Amino acid sequence: MLKIKTNENFASLSGSYLFTETQRRIRLFEAENPEKKVIKLGIGDVTRPLAPTVVEAMLRAAEEMGRADGFHGYAPEAGYGFLRTAIAENYASRGVDVRPEEVYVSDGSKSDASGIFDLFGDLPVVIPDPVYPVYADSCVMSGKKVVYLPATRENGFLPTPDLAPDRASAIFICSPNNPTGAAYGTAGLAEWVAYAKRTGSLIVCDAAYSAFISSDCPNSIYRIPGAKSCAVELNSLSKSAGFTGTRCAWAVFPRELGELAGMWLRRQSAKFNGVAYVVQRAAEAALSKQGMRESEENIAYYRRNAQKICSVLSEKGIYHTGGIDSPYIWLKCPGTDDSWGFFDRMLHRLRIAGTPGAGFGKNGEGYFRLTAFCSDEDADEAAERMRKLL
Amino acid sequence: MLKIKTNENFASLSGSYLFTETQRRIRLFEAENPEKKVIKLGIGDVTRPLAPTVVEAMLRAAEEMGRADGFHGYAPEAGYGFLRTAIAENYASRGVDVRPEEVYVSDGSKSDASGIFDLFGDLPVVIPDPVYPVYADSCVMSGKKVVYLPATRENGFLPTPDLAPDRASAIFICSPNNPTGAAYGTAGLAEWVAYAKRTGSLIVCDAAYSAFISSDCPNSIYRIPGAKSCAVELNSLSKSAGFTGTRCAWAVFPRELGELAGMWLRRQSAKFNGVAYVVQRAAEAALSKQGMRESEENIAYYRRNAQKICSVLSEKGIYHTGGIDSPYIWLKCPGTDDSWGFFDRMLHRLRIAGTPGAGFGKNGEGYFRLTAFCSDEDADEAAERMRKLL
Repeated sequence: MLKIKTNENFASLSGSYLFTETQRRIRLFEAENPEKKVIKLGIGDVTRPLAPTVVEAMLRAAEEMGRADGFHGYAPEAGYGFLRTAIAENYASRGVDVRPEEVYVSDGSKSDASGIFDLFGDLPVVIPDPVYPVYADSCVMSGKKVVYLPATRENGFLPTPDLAPDRASAIFICSPNNPTGAAYGTAGLAEWVAYAKRTGSLIVCDAAYSAFISSDCPNSIYRIPGAKSCAVELNSLSKSAGFTGTRCAWAVFPRELGELAGMWLRRQSAKFNGVAYVVQRAAEAALSKQGMRESEENIAYYRRNAQKICSVLSEKGIYHTGGIDSPYIWLKCPGTDDSWGFFDRMLHRLRIAGTPGAGFGKNGEGYFRLTAFCSDEDADEAAERMRKLL
Repeated sequence: MLKIKTNENFASLSGSYLFTETQRRIRLFEAENPEKKVIKLGIGDVTRPLAPTVVEAMLRAAEEMGRADGFHGYAPEAGYGFLRTAIAENYASRGVDVRPEEVYVSDGSKSDASGIFDLFGDLPVVIPDPVYPVYADSCVMSGKKVVYLPATRENGFLPTPDLAPDRASAIFICSPNNPTGAAYGTAGLAEWVAYAKRTGSLIVCDAAYSAFISSDCPNSIYRIPGAKSCAVELNSLSKSAGFTGTRCAWAVFPRELGELAGMWLRRQSAKFNGVAYVVQRAAEAALSKQGMRESEENIAYYRRNAQKICSVLSEKGIYHTGGIDSPYIWLKCPGTDDSWGFFDRMLHRLRIAGTPGAGFGKNGEGYFRLTAFCSDEDADEAAERMRKLL
């Protein structure tokens, strides 16, 4: 029998990863009700196919890998030059100065958001509540102290620095936010940059949903003057180019962060072995002008879905936010349901799978997240069911 | 200026990852000597193209991803059922009983070998010296105590449990070994299993090179009775099917390990987002009968390269081992060179890049690793240069 000491911090984690539990309940319902179609608006997983430009690049790269003169072995640790350059050019097209050598390619923002904990010593980690569970899970696993910042209806789900500790910390910002869909404006982000500079803190800004911004909210924290000396930015092609099943993301460690960038490279080269060549070529294509145009069509498609769902919530007088700069709609559970109760009611009565707000943190209780990443038929059908049955 | 407390353990790491430093020196030499061709026998990176069956599967999957009815988003956390089954069947074909649900697909054995540290509390970690640097690097980063087991010419580079601590520990075994090429026989592995069972220890057996075994050494630790209750096995398609630039590997957590498998799933679902669909389909094809046959040809090709290099070392009377069950040849640096000195001499005089033994641990000093993962022309040319100039 094993007698090794295991990591005691696991005992402080919730029993299972949020989406493992929602999936379990959905599968159970489906097994018991095989004739009923469940509309999946739970996990933030895209459904539109990869753009033609992306598929072409992937096919070309796969063929290369089958030829002696086109084969590629281990990729450079921080990503191929062609992709780091494409990412830097994408920032440039948005008026943001990021150099290729500041870009570290990875297989996902989840990997980056959790991997960055390896760089931290004993310091407070500041995390909004509710938020994407990965930051808190990684924090708990690593035994770090978490300071939760309440994101509530009162502050527009955008917590401000006045609740953060007055000493150097690592602050996770997710904007546009998962799950609430709230996005910081320029003034709001600038407040965080000022806080970071005053306290010597590091901001880790998860911008995975920035492609969905349709308002004037900044689509990169580096639009805020001075942010390069205090912020790492994470971004991903998962939601912008439909790469959830293809896996490519990046972290920006600006040279102004000094030794931290070197630590990240050391961490990545010791613990990670790069992203597949075919995927990096596909990512390059996704970031090309043609690739971006094709992805824009998918984003517009998901935006229309969001509007359909928001419309019916408005009709019903159900408080909701998001859906503008974000594929997520965040709604107040109507009636007296708590969020897992509402999850079950939606699943059993409306056959719509969403995600209970409580899964994203204490302040998510009483709320519910729906995603717009479905087909337009499903969005219509979901709106119809909500119109009739909610 | 950033004032966050960073992870102090980084200060105990070597300045750069071993292969980052060797690459730096090689690039410098190449920049200064652009007319001279350096033969790369350093990094254990394959050069033969992906097998036709693998490329076909990848092309098919890429086309699927471009169609609404074939698109795949997030993969199941532990890998697609089709791949977990293919891996289990591969074990079955070698007479080893591993169930699909005991297999956890990942993007690389490096990710798994470092990620597993997240499961450990305060316990001694037992690591052979010399060995693949990832285990020790991850250990140092996580602040765990390392017990090094000397792997020397005297013990055939296969340390035995008598030097390991008498309490529950995590033991890393790499067999066939990187860098020495030494592989444990049945009796040697059985000694480790007996030790693990006596002390309640966990064995992490890295079998990434098992496809190279041509002797009667076991190609899985699960060939040893009782190993399923004390051992995790890591394996990868990097070296067996040329996936270094495609990225697919797996960890086996047998159900006999109890809660540890659940902890691994919890860790993976919180910190990792799965392997690309196209890559999992390619991996499935690599494990098919036809894929295995095609890979075998590449392995035989690399074996012939190893024999060419071993021959010239024998002619020269230079002590060496490996090259039989392994793509690595481990040789004693001739003359008075230390291993970095020999690295520089090989690079500057013979224009052959290898890897200094000291980079793999204290006991690697005085030794040098060459890989057989080159083209046959390069193996011939390297043998020729060594014959003339060594």
